[in-house]
Amino acid sequence: MAKERLYLYDTTLRDGQQTQGVQFSTHEKRQIAELLDALGVDYIEGGWPGANPTDSEFFDTRPETRATFTAFGMTKRAGRSAGNDDVLAAVMNADTPAVCLVGKTHDFHVTAALGVTLAENLENIAASVAHVVAQGREALFDAEHFFDGWKANRDYALDCLQAAYEAGARWIVLCDTNGGTLPGELRAIVREVIVAGIPGDRLGIHCHNDTETAVAASLAAVEEGVRQVQGTLNGLGERCGNANLTALIPTLLLKEPYASRFETGVSRDSLHGLTRASRMLDDILNRVPLRAAAYVGASAFAHKAGLHASAILKDPTTYEHIDPTLVGNERIIPMSNQAGQSNLRARLAAAGIEVAPKDPALGRILDRIKDREDQGYAYDGAQASFELVAREELGLLPKFFEVKRYRVTVERRKNKRNQTVSLSEAVVVVKVGDRKMLSVSESLDESGSDRGPVNALAKALGKDLGPYQAMIDDMRLVDFKVRITQGGTEAVTRVIIDSEDGQGRRWSTVGVSPNIVDASFEALLDAITWKLVRDGAQAA
Amino acid sequence: MAKERLYLYDTTLRDGQQTQGVQFSTHEKRQIAELLDALGVDYIEGGWPGANPTDSEFFDTRPETRATFTAFGMTKRAGRSAGNDDVLAAVMNADTPAVCLVGKTHDFHVTAALGVTLAENLENIAASVAHVVAQGREALFDAEHFFDGWKANRDYALDCLQAAYEAGARWIVLCDTNGGTLPGELRAIVREVIVAGIPGDRLGIHCHNDTETAVAASLAAVEEGVRQVQGTLNGLGERCGNANLTALIPTLLLKEPYASRFETGVSRDSLHGLTRASRMLDDILNRVPLRAAAYVGASAFAHKAGLHASAILKDPTTYEHIDPTLVGNERIIPMSNQAGQSNLRARLAAAGIEVAPKDPALGRILDRIKDREDQGYAYDGAQASFELVAREELGLLPKFFEVKRYRVTVERRKNKRNQTVSLSEAVVVVKVGDRKMLSVSESLDESGSDRGPVNALAKALGKDLGPYQAMIDDMRLVDFKVRITQGGTEAVTRVIIDSEDGQGRRWSTVGVSPNIVDASFEALLDAITWKLVRDGAQAA
Repeated sequence: MAKERLYLYDTTLRDGQQTQGVQFSTHEKRQIAELLDALGVDYIEGGWPGANPTDSEFFDTRPETRATFTAFGMTKRAGRSAGNDDVLAAVMNADTPAVCLVGKTHDFHVTAALGVTLAENLENIAASVAHVVAQGREALFDAEHFFDGWKANRDYALDCLQAAYEAGARWIVLCDTNGGTLPGELRAIVREVIVAGIPGDRLGIHCHNDTETAVAASLAAVEEGVRQVQGTLNGLGERCGNANLTALIPTLLLKEPYASRFETGVSRDSLHGLTRASRMLDDILNRVPLRAAAYVGASAFAHKAGLHASAILKDPTTYEHIDPTLVGNERIIPMSNQAGQSNLRARLAAAGIEVAPKDPALGRILDRIKDREDQGYAYDGAQASFELVAREELGLLPKFFEVKRYRVTVERRKNKRNQTVSLSEAVVVVKVGDRKMLSVSESLDESGSDRGPVNALAKALGKDLGPYQAMIDDMRLVDFKVRITQGGTEAVTRVIIDSEDGQGRRWSTVGVSPNIVDASFEALLDAITWKLVRDGAQAA
Repeated sequence: MAKERLYLYDTTLRDGQQTQGVQFSTHEKRQIAELLDALGVDYIEGGWPGANPTDSEFFDTRPETRATFTAFGMTKRAGRSAGNDDVLAAVMNADTPAVCLVGKTHDFHVTAALGVTLAENLENIAASVAHVVAQGREALFDAEHFFDGWKANRDYALDCLQAAYEAGARWIVLCDTNGGTLPGELRAIVREVIVAGIPGDRLGIHCHNDTETAVAASLAAVEEGVRQVQGTLNGLGERCGNANLTALIPTLLLKEPYASRFETGVSRDSLHGLTRASRMLDDILNRVPLRAAAYVGASAFAHKAGLHASAILKDPTTYEHIDPTLVGNERIIPMSNQAGQSNLRARLAAAGIEVAPKDPALGRILDRIKDREDQGYAYDGAQASFELVAREELGLLPKFFEVKRYRVTVERRKNKRNQTVSLSEAVVVVKVGDRKMLSVSESLDESGSDRGPVNALAKALGKDLGPYQAMIDDMRLVDFKVRITQGGTEAVTRVIIDSEDGQGRRWSTVGVSPNIVDASFEALLDAITWKLVRDGAQAA
């Protein structure tokens, strides 16, 4: 049986920009548009041409996309023709194949917010949509506050949809603008809209996540017959965000009853790029990716409970609802004090360390991990440090170098112009074989700003490791997390450091101490040691 | 019409502990149990007694709760009686009023993972539940993998439920262990279970968020008749987390069709504490609260679009699905407008600082707060630092002392016995009036352990402030939190310090810098300055 076409409409670049703290540059908008196009969404809504300089510039230089590029705007204002509305003209001038215009459908908003009559609003919708169609563009009507409008004045809300439909809108998009409509109610209203004469294959759904049900509500609308789903990558958007396409897309492609019934612009093949697209968006926005995100989160296929982990080893389907590789994600069996020996063996094997079942070293490793966890270490997020502990216990850790001592000085004082300046300086003394090496570094970055004592220490430590220096030159510190594991004066500090090298490998190490500088140093040491092990360095 | 009782079952302390990177201490478990009890959930599942030392210790010292305290465990193993199963005995020995036992209901798991016959598994369920009931406890049966089991072998899955039901289980909890069942399918299966003879008021639902639909699926189950909902605070849990009670509770209490139909242990009154409970849990876990979280997120009622913000001022219902104060959250609108200023005045008045409406200083304070928030400061948790910023702008901050410079040295080296030792030393130079004072301190505590550079600095700073010394002698640092606000090499550190004095006052201050020692120093300075202001110290 031929599959039905379901259209995915992405509004990351428009509604996603309403996220608190998000402000895309033109360049970032281009990057994101390319990500979306590679993924295969059917429509990319680029923004509101004329609303701000960035959006206008972006439309002037937008990339060529396979997806239908769409400009967003609003229906014409009352008292002028569609052709004479400058706001609408700016939208049309962006010259996109599709144009989506938002209009009011809630009677209260029409009279109170717009201050026009209900009849004028209907005329604005009809004339604006007709104008877009007359210019040879695909027209979409974005029915703002539709569900609240329906509850307040059902006939009028329907009249608005009907006006857009009759004027030739390809899509009528039902928006739950405030995000308060729950899936059950939304489903019932969609059903009635279709019964009232707007065909499902002309309807779109646009949900917000204010009750954490936007994904389910979108699916419910599809079940009722709606054939366009709007959302954003990673669920970006105002307040609690929009319906999350990163969760919706794999559900629609991989799970029943949708998978056998629908096809979208996203292929099973490009679905492999989903996790990467999600992480790249976070990267562009400098956000920490949500570990628990459905399908694409770093924890989405992480199995912590010992019982689960051992079952997973026998058969992954026991605790996984899909194969993580289908969305470009991977299984993780983290270490923790709940893990068993089989879990441990699997984790070691993944790191290239084969240990026979029942090897007594397994018990010793688990004991040591447990001991260190009691001191405040955490190995779930520090796989590289975990590997080093295991290697040491297994006699697989060469002795590369020894740190004899270090000293870091942190100073703050007033300079001659009575400005407060701060500076840190670190001296590290390392012994490689019989050679002793002193390195010193200060904490200033290229712009002359103080980056603090850990920065100085990292630079000094990475400055001269003799024969190993070439191997660590391509390392850089990419993330640094600090947690105080006990409160007050007994505070113990846990530092987790993420490092990266020239091959794009990324690894995490942990250090613990009541002294925050010392905890950082320990994590830095582990980071270097792990890199040397992985690159096959020999003992000094 | 009398409302129906719906029960909320919290598993933050058990399933929530499966979250990657989460490891509760006994103390933290107690704190969280108290949070949950104040909120009003009906059941608190505390963990698995006997499974690890922390859980065992927690049950030995658990707080008294209004909620029914529940121990989790598994059904007895085959080949022994329930009374002779040591794992089950450890669970029973925790002596809780309720006991929840997980058992298999998926035939494949019974034979493949447990390696017992289908009949043996049924006997294990029945005998275990009967054992719990015979001991006078409330019994819950946690039907693991129920939905997958139903799809694989419907009759057997039902037989398992029936065995628990007939043995006297108060609740049969339908678990979607892998989180892969979508709301539509889950709803249909729940309906059939009830038709098959397990009454809805004996059924619980336990969903996971692997498709981002756990909240909606839980609501669907309630609509079909299920009367116990399981979940966790902030949606903690393995992989993508459990159904999020922080989203479910307000929906059930505030929104139709649930609000008029059900009552739970959570009152409208205690619902005001929801946002605080959510933030406190993140605080305990040192996690950054999710801004976009439904209901409780800092962005949940933030109105960024100019159009929305101005409509909100006219009538909040235009862009808000509920009143944010109902869940203890607040509306956020651009600081520069009228509402921002009246909020600010109220906050200053609470600190004893009266400012006239339209005082131009209000705008300056808002600008400065906003500037500093852009740099990484956070004033929600640092009211004392906020007051100091406002006082400075209002000309209400006396000049007590000036820090001319400080220097902290952190050293680590091998001692004569080749043991690694570390030590920090701080010198602070302060000017009070015309007097210059040098103080020095080292980082060792009474037992001779190194407590790190911040400890040394705090002691040196508090050692000699001349005429102010008597006023700060009763101050002590009670908590210290560190957060990295941006990733990688651009990392900026935010330090929040809680201080306490002899009168039992407690106040929080914040410092921000790429240099962690300097950020701490800034927060320490604010802490001392606030204390001097509050104690009425005069300028030097």
